[in-house]
Parts: sequence; structure tokens; C-alpha cells
Amino acid sequence: MLIVQKYGGTSVGSLERIENVARRVAKARDEGNDLVVVVSAMSGETNKLIEYAHHFSKTPSKREMDILLSSGERVTASLLAIALQEMGYGAVALTGRQAGIRTDSTHTYARIESIDTTAIRRELDKGNIVIVAGFQGINEKGEVTTLGRGGSDLSAVALAGALHADACEIYSDVDGIYTTDPRIEPKARKLDSISYDEMLELSSLGAKVLQNRSVELAKKMGVKIIAKSSFDEGPGTIIAEEDEKMEEVLVSGIALDKNQARVSLRDVTDRPGIAAEIFKRLADEQINVDMIIQNASKEGTTNLGFTVPQSELEVAKRAIESFDHDIGSADYDENVCKVSVVGVGMKSHSGIAAKAFEALAENNINIEMISTSEIKISMIIDEKYGELAVRVLHEAYELDK
Amino acid sequence: MLIVQKYGGTSVGSLERIENVARRVAKARDEGNDLVVVVSAMSGETNKLIEYAHHFSKTPSKREMDILLSSGERVTASLLAIALQEMGYGAVALTGRQAGIRTDSTHTYARIESIDTTAIRRELDKGNIVIVAGFQGINEKGEVTTLGRGGSDLSAVALAGALHADACEIYSDVDGIYTTDPRIEPKARKLDSISYDEMLELSSLGAKVLQNRSVELAKKMGVKIIAKSSFDEGPGTIIAEEDEKMEEVLVSGIALDKNQARVSLRDVTDRPGIAAEIFKRLADEQINVDMIIQNASKEGTTNLGFTVPQSELEVAKRAIESFDHDIGSADYDENVCKVSVVGVGMKSHSGIAAKAFEALAENNINIEMISTSEIKISMIIDEKYGELAVRVLHEAYELDK
Repeated sequence: MLIVQKYGGTSVGSLERIENVARRVAKARDEGNDLVVVVSAMSGETNKLIEYAHHFSKTPSKREMDILLSSGERVTASLLAIALQEMGYGAVALTGRQAGIRTDSTHTYARIESIDTTAIRRELDKGNIVIVAGFQGINEKGEVTTLGRGGSDLSAVALAGALHADACEIYSDVDGIYTTDPRIEPKARKLDSISYDEMLELSSLGAKVLQNRSVELAKKMGVKIIAKSSFDEGPGTIIAEEDEKMEEVLVSGIALDKNQARVSLRDVTDRPGIAAEIFKRLADEQINVDMIIQNASKEGTTNLGFTVPQSELEVAKRAIESFDHDIGSADYDENVCKVSVVGVGMKSHSGIAAKAFEALAENNINIEMISTSEIKISMIIDEKYGELAVRVLHEAYELDK
Repeated sequence: MLIVQKYGGTSVGSLERIENVARRVAKARDEGNDLVVVVSAMSGETNKLIEYAHHFSKTPSKREMDILLSSGERVTASLLAIALQEMGYGAVALTGRQAGIRTDSTHTYARIESIDTTAIRRELDKGNIVIVAGFQGINEKGEVTTLGRGGSDLSAVALAGALHADACEIYSDVDGIYTTDPRIEPKARKLDSISYDEMLELSSLGAKVLQNRSVELAKKMGVKIIAKSSFDEGPGTIIAEEDEKMEEVLVSGIALDKNQARVSLRDVTDRPGIAAEIFKRLADEQINVDMIIQNASKEGTTNLGFTVPQSELEVAKRAIESFDHDIGSADYDENVCKVSVVGVGMKSHSGIAAKAFEALAENNINIEMISTSEIKISMIIDEKYGELAVRVLHEAYELDK
């Protein structure tokens, strides 16, 4: 089997942990697998480098940031290769460039455009374990680029896709994907498997195990991801295309996102294009507008509600003030959160949403906004009820069973 | 003027010091110069990375060491570029690869083969200050190489040569080249200028300001080096081809090397080729044999004396033991040191050596071995008289004046 493994910052956070990773890699090798291992920077290193840069500038040049930040993964990759060589294994460290990872030119948030696997194939053919510095590539001018936070996941998935690997194992300090955050609901259960779409909803809704772009790419390239812990031997959670077995599951998980603020615009002039204008202005300011509700109210005006990340609320306020003449009144609420129910079973089963509303109502939790997709229901509620709502919904869908 | 500046690890040893360097670079820019700035890793970083590697292996793979070690200079280069940009200067950080530095494939101790200055020229033409990560390049396979300890000096000199720069300023924490080590002789005087050859002798004899390979390369390429401190505004010391003015100087400096051990082989079979055999064996063991004295003694045998670095004495002993049948007796002395007098004036003046012997004799310092070149006299003496000999010679040649 050809396996791509990826070890995150916590998994390689000290020399002892790198040694632990080396032993895991060696074990997989002993079992007869060909291995490409993608590593992150040692935990804390990337933040340290960002702090260094911010000592000099609040807005450091992104081109230089990429040269700066790409150094951390190079350190881990070479150390892991050295550790494996010392254990008697053939191993070679490759930088993003050497691994053939070509990206666009969006420094600090580049997209992978293609991977030339020649060098990796050559090393695999020699019998070497290939260690790749994650998070980085080069653009067409040969300049160093990085892929943004969590970019090493993206490196791993893209490599697994390009190499047609049998699996892409993503190692972190948690042992898989849970029905909900175990810190909120101790009865949360680890899932054996989950579909790409469900994972996408869960991670965009606040679950932090896997970076969303990686799941999207895995779905696109058909890469089977296995999320595992590097600190134990558990089987982890498989993230793949939904299969028959998965369809039996109605609901896979409950997610809670507390970084939400609600914006309510009342008595907005009801002229064509006004909503588009407002949302375009917000998009220009890089604000991620999430749930949107619009409904006509008094004659000639409409009400518009939506949510934005709390951290972007101040910028949103300023953007909205520029529409003074079109908006009757604006009301902002930071004390809200979004609780979501995710499951592919919703596609073919009715009554799932009703069960959520019922469960929250029974517990006197008022739902301020609702938004649904084929496989999820999201509800905006008072922030103080967030954890309670998670537990109530977890029980309502019997996720602990 | 086009100036190449190089800042060593101590000069960029903290964020505050990098800021200080940025101000110096900016000042030189304000004076109308085009600038290429080569930087080392922050002091301590390279040693930290070496320790990391040695945690895993006593003999880490050199190819991986190069990926590991080259990361430190990339960090400094990008931070300095960011600092300069924040001050309003156009600046761009280039890795060794991007700066066009091509080396041979001797990982961890590569030689620069050529420099493609296209990218640097392009950035200079745009009006940018070019910051280059020192100590690194790539080989013909595109793999990262490093140039060995002090390799950033070499990067700077090679770039100055390839760019036909007007000067190569090497900044460190000392303000120039001294007649001798000021910690030994407080009357030591900073030299205004010194010839390449004298500098070569002084640095191979123990002076540590400039790496020897860099001086050799500067001589070969005709690059004028100015050794300066990054912590004050002194004029430093110019290292260049000797000129008329220099020739007036008889002696430029006194060097002391305490890392010496004397090997005396008595009653060596006096057959053709025996000395060559012994020295070949020592060379095979990578031992740097320095001063050699041979003189016939009793009929049919000869005496052979030479020095080796103390750290290599044990290996030398083992090599010599393999010649048991050809050597009467071997005698080793670690308690010796080498004191040297260096000066281009020796070429054209007689009596300079005699003055050294006389000065030491007056102070009852016994000379065990002597070796001379066109511009230096080296003497092996009892280690305990090393500092005294430096002071005596410094006074004898009136170097404090």
C-alpha cells in the first residue's frame, strides 16, 4: 500500500515527539507500506516566527512572510529524516519545491495548482521513506509560497491525490471525529466513518480536527482520509464518499460555533439590488457573511438579518453605516451562537429538523434564526444556551448510542 | 557605489539588533548606494539546530543537515527585509537559490561554483535593497547546500566579486583587525589596512575575525573587504592587495594558536619514501599536519618533527603506531603553542626573524621548532609562555605605535 501520513504541530512538538513519530512511521514501513510523510512545524514555531515579523511590522510583506514561515516545516522534515536514517531506514527529506508542489502566487494563502511527483516517485522506487515539508510550495516564478493555516493537511491530501495513494492518514492529538465536542458533551462518541460532505459541514461549523480546504480537496480528488491520534493506536475516523452503510445514519454530529454575531437591519429600502449592494460591500471588506434571512415587513421596506464572525463585527458595522440613507435601523448582537445538526440521512428522511426544534423548545431555548442545507440544520440561539443546546440535541438524536 | 554588506550572527542576534542593522542599511542607502546585504542566522540558532540533529544521530546525513541548517538564514533575511520595508525602503529577501548561488555537491561544506546575478540585478534595477540568506546555495541537482562554518562571509565575498561591487563590508562584533588579540596584549592596535596574504596568515594562525576561505576568494576575485563592527561607526580595517603604503610596514601582527601538539619521531628508518608514507597516512585520517622538521641523526636513521591540532592528536598517535617497525621512538607534547609574526615587509627586509629569536631569548623563552614563509615566522614554544611571547614580540616590533 502507498500511504501518505501527515503529522501536525503537536505530534512533532518536541524532539521526543519527533522520535515517537519516527517509530510510528517505521512501524508502517515494517508492515510493507510505501510511505510519504508530510510534517508541520513544531508547535509554537510558526507563531513565534509570526511574532518576530510583527515586531517589525503590523502588515509584513506576504512574499517575505512565506520565506520566513516555510522554514519551520523544513526543520521538522530534516529532523524526522535524520531520526529514521539513524533507525536504519532509507529516508529523504524534501522541501515543498523538491516535492514538486506548484501553487498560484497568492502569498501566505496559496492554492496548489499541480504536483510533479517525479522526485517523490524516484525516491519511493529507491525504497526510501519520503518526508515532505508541509504547508509550502513554489509559484511559477519559483518563489516560495505557503498554503495558509492548516496548510500541511492540504499538502498531504494533494500528494495523496497526485500519487493515487491508498489512504491519507492525518495525525493530530485527537483520535478521530466525534459526534460533538467531548469537552461540552462527555457522552460524545467517536465516529468510525463520516462522509466528506458531513465533515465539511462539521468543520465549517466549528469542529477543528480537519481544515476545510483539505476535506474539499479530498472530496474532489477522491482521497480517503483517516483522522487519527499520533499518541495512541486507535483506528481513527475514516472520511470518505458516503456509502450504503453511512446512509443508515440520520445525524452524524452536532457542532457549536460561538464566534458568531447577529446583524439585524430593519426597514431597509425595498428597491431592487439593495441587498446585493450591502452584501457586496461586506464582501469587499473580506467579511464572511453566513446565515441570511430576508423578509418583507411594512410596505416599501424589508428586514434583513445575517450573521458574521464576531471578530469581523466592527468592520461590518462601519460598512453598514455607509448605507445610512437606505437602512431604517441596525441592531447588533454578539451574544449569539450557532448550533448545527449535520447528517447525510437528512437527504432522504423527513422530520429531522422538526426533532431539533422540538428538543430546543422543550428546554425553553428560543431559536432566533434558522438555515438549512441538504445535510445540515443551523440555528442561531442565545450564546448562554450553546452548550445546553448541544447536549439536548446530542440526546435527541441518540448520538451516544 | 554598489556595496555588499554582510552581518554576522551576533549582529543579528536579537530582534532589536536586526532593527539596528536595518537602520545601518537604510543609512547606507540614504547615502546613495546600491546594496546587497548578506545575513547569517541569529546567533545560537545554528548551534540549536545542530543540537537537535545530534539528538537523533551522531552522524546525521549531510544532505538533510543542509535543509535543516539553511533555515536559520532564511528567517533573518526575511525579517530584515520586512524591517526595511516598514521603514519605507524597497527591499526583497532572496534565498541562496533565488540569489543564484550555485555550488558543488559537497553537502555541509560546499564550494561556490558560480553565481547567476540576474535576479539580484533585476531587483537592484528596481531600486530594491537585496537581502540574501547567507551560507547557502544549491547544487546542479537543485538540492540545498551549505558552505560550512562562516559560510556567510563566503557568500558575501562571492556576491561582491560576481557583481563587481565597490566593496564588501563584513560586520561583526569587533571593529577591525588588530596587531594581536587585545585580550592578550591590551596595547594591541587596530590596523587601518592589511594585505590579503597577511590576513590569510593571521587567520590561519588563529585570528578569528574573518574566515580563511573568504579571504582566499577575495584575493582571487580582487574583492576589497572592509571588516567593521555593527555596533559602532568606526572605519574598520581594509583588506586588499598590498600597496606601496603597506610595504613600509614590516610586521602587521602577532598570532597565537594554542591548539597545537608536537609530535617527535626519533630514529626513523632512513629509507626513501618513509616520510611520504607517514604523512600520507596522516592525511588519510584527515589530520592537518602543520610545521614539519626533518634532520638526519645517527647513521641510517632520521628524526622527524611536526605539529598537529591538539584535537587530532589521538588519531595521529594511532596512525603513527602502525609504523612501529620503522620508528625508533615517538614522543608527544600537548603543552606547546605556536606564536607567529606576520608581515609583508619580510619579503624585502632582512633581520626580522633574528629580532624575534632575540626577543624571545632575552625573556628565556626556548624555541622548539621554527617554520618560515615569505611573510611569516612561526615558532613552537612551551604553551605556558604563549601570552608572554605575544607581548614580547608585540613590543619588539613596536606594533603599538
